[in-house]
Amino acid sequence: MSAVVTLLTDFGLEDTYVGVMRGVIASLCPEAIVIDLTHQVPPQDIATGAFLLDISVDYFPEGAIHVAVVDPGVGTARKPVALRTSRAFFVGPDNGIFTLVLQRWKLLQAVCLDNPRYHLSEVSATFHGRDIFAPVAAHLARGTSLEELGSPITRLQRLPLPRIRVDWQGIRATIVHIDRFGNAITNLTRADYETWRNRWGVEEPVVEVAAKTQVEICRTYADVPRGQPLALFGSSGRLEVAVNGGNAAQTFLLRRGDTVKVLRRETTPPPRVQRTLGLE
Amino acid sequence: MSAVVTLLTDFGLEDTYVGVMRGVIASLCPEAIVIDLTHQVPPQDIATGAFLLDISVDYFPEGAIHVAVVDPGVGTARKPVALRTSRAFFVGPDNGIFTLVLQRWKLLQAVCLDNPRYHLSEVSATFHGRDIFAPVAAHLARGTSLEELGSPITRLQRLPLPRIRVDWQGIRATIVHIDRFGNAITNLTRADYETWRNRWGVEEPVVEVAAKTQVEICRTYADVPRGQPLALFGSSGRLEVAVNGGNAAQTFLLRRGDTVKVLRRETTPPPRVQRTLGLE
Amino acid sequence: MSAVVTLLTDFGLEDTYVGVMRGVIASLCPEAIVIDLTHQVPPQDIATGAFLLDISVDYFPEGAIHVAVVDPGVGTARKPVALRTSRAFFVGPDNGIFTLVLQRWKLLQAVCLDNPRYHLSEVSATFHGRDIFAPVAAHLARGTSLEELGSPITRLQRLPLPRIRVDWQGIRATIVHIDRFGNAITNLTRADYETWRNRWGVEEPVVEVAAKTQVEICRTYADVPRGQPLALFGSSGRLEVAVNGGNAAQTFLLRRGDTVKVLRRETTPPPRVQRTLGLE
Repeated sequence: MSAVVTLLTDFGLEDTYVGVMRGVIASLCPEAIVIDLTHQVPPQDIATGAFLLDISVDYFPEGAIHVAVVDPGVGTARKPVALRTSRAFFVGPDNGIFTLVLQRWKLLQAVCLDNPRYHLSEVSATFHGRDIFAPVAAHLARGTSLEELGSPITRLQRLPLPRIRVDWQGIRATIVHIDRFGNAITNLTRADYETWRNRWGVEEPVVEVAAKTQVEICRTYADVPRGQPLALFGSSGRLEVAVNGGNAAQTFLLRRGDTVKVLRRETTPPPRVQRTLGLE
Repeated sequence: MSAVVTLLTDFGLEDTYVGVMRGVIASLCPEAIVIDLTHQVPPQDIATGAFLLDISVDYFPEGAIHVAVVDPGVGTARKPVALRTSRAFFVGPDNGIFTLVLQRWKLLQAVCLDNPRYHLSEVSATFHGRDIFAPVAAHLARGTSLEELGSPITRLQRLPLPRIRVDWQGIRATIVHIDRFGNAITNLTRADYETWRNRWGVEEPVVEVAAKTQVEICRTYADVPRGQPLALFGSSGRLEVAVNGGNAAQTFLLRRGDTVKVLRRETTPPPRVQRTLGLE
Repeated sequence: MSAVVTLLTDFGLEDTYVGVMRGVIASLCPEAIVIDLTHQVPPQDIATGAFLLDISVDYFPEGAIHVAVVDPGVGTARKPVALRTSRAFFVGPDNGIFTLVLQRWKLLQAVCLDNPRYHLSEVSATFHGRDIFAPVAAHLARGTSLEELGSPITRLQRLPLPRIRVDWQGIRATIVHIDRFGNAITNLTRADYETWRNRWGVEEPVVEVAAKTQVEICRTYADVPRGQPLALFGSSGRLEVAVNGGNAAQTFLLRRGDTVKVLRRETTPPPRVQRTLGLE
């Protein structure tokens, strides 16, 4: 079966940067199936790249080769790396872009791409996507082992990513991505949400968006009338704020990094305190 | 020969929605040739999706599998469907997006995609493109029959689309799409235009755009000087208003839904009346 | 090995123009590997198309078929052509879009695409990308020879492109492209730069951008602090002006066609004059 290679970059599609990466891969491994994840990561926004990669990997065959190039430090001391995990291969700069996938998939092997035999013959200081990462991905697709590609490394950069904060009253989540439809996607997974509800016996919480607007948690967009806001666990399994037939980010002036709260509806004090009070 | 699968959505390319659909297809049918029609249908604009699909289908092999996902009702009662026509297969929501292709190609078979065996194991309420339509397309590409995919249905949703209005004086057409160059494409086909001319003996009509501007019907853009407006039957076979080397939509503030008139130049009464008068 | 076909156009991705070209190619030569160079050349900007094609060709296999359609004269007397060079095939309108690649690669054969057998059965006056260039590329990918495709031609259109101007004091270069990151790429190659330095014994020149701002020539973006401007020889081998982590075009209001100067730092008179003076 042909190897699948995916590309995620901040290169945009106005230039020929992506086309040229594909040209390099086609030159070395024409039978690879090359798929664009996206090339419109905001310029140099490693955290968004990490998020978009993480929510996508599960839908590709095991052993796929994921190339991720959001690389403000290109040409500096930051290392070009290739990783083998329990799910897939990853190729790109060691700048934290693999932080999220490495939280979910076991790292089996990591190398610094220091074997020039698998690079283009001339390596520029500004376009490692073309000169290092694309040829390395093509060689992986042809079956080259990680040992061949470079020296083992043991420590990888990790991004300091926002975490949810939880107490009996609610969850503070952070918007990590605004999608094309203006849906504001947070870092709150359904699993963490259910854990909170079970831990504190929360029935039907509400979601508070900017400026104290409260919205209900629904199953799909059309559960509310057109133009009305809602929250739901979207296709990435994360809580998102949306407007049915509209654009939540524009409506509520939401931006990446903003807080979204999930709150218990009850105004009573917390269960444990209540119980204590009951014993008086 | 490998099956051709096309994708038309309003998902944009900023996110990884399209890449993930391709990942699902590559997982199930790596030998499929997957081609993007466009992913920049305006969000939730089913009519534009229907138009862009209709003008594209003829340029693909017979038996191609066209997936069209502009789906504001995702997760509601609207049915996910697969259609077999005399030309090609179509997969998507039953919300009218196939209205135009079904006016031109005979519907041979239609099923509601209610067999979960051909979906992803977990189906979200918000991304059927990934969870239902992509895997169904991949299974069709592998030769699965429509009977396998779901239960027969007999009635499909149709969009109420604008129609041309014709009389001896002219044709009122509607702008159905503004393309990247600012060309304003109407719903008037060359066939309907010729029928009108023959029926009423019209020699060389003019086209009236917004605010009474009259332009000539030409063969190609460069038939008028740079910066000058014109009308022509474009590559989709529909009448369009253009500016040579410019942007007609911006120049004339044209929008989808606006009227464009084709008018006879003569100010004389209609032929039949004329003939009656001649007999006096 | 499968043939590689690349597509470079100004068609954008909002419409289905590119998808339809791929449909035509898949109908005729499904085994071709089709790669988008870019479809976002500014509308009708032949010079930018020529530049982007030129900096990309070297990264594709020899014998690749490069289709370039920026074609304001579609449907007029301008000829549709196919070229065979020492590197690759080129297909598109004869309007100068191949000017730059023909400066670097030897032209071996050129034909006017006047054999309708290799076109679609109906050829529109406005979309030769679909009706002529895509099917011709597919036939080339299948091994059809240029003789079959049309009649030999001997003269091709060339664009009047900006040239660098060089004297002992410096080099005047022209910005030929602004990329997605706002980097302003000039027409000064590293080879021409080195020739100038050697000829006039220049040690470490500076680069002067709009409004007398002087920046240093660095190796990569991160050689200066974030937010600081610099110049470097970028991945295309041309001098470019950039801002580390920023957007040089926005910062300095740079546009295509603007001048960028490389200047010797010394304020002494030129060597030859100096020597003359010394003889007095």
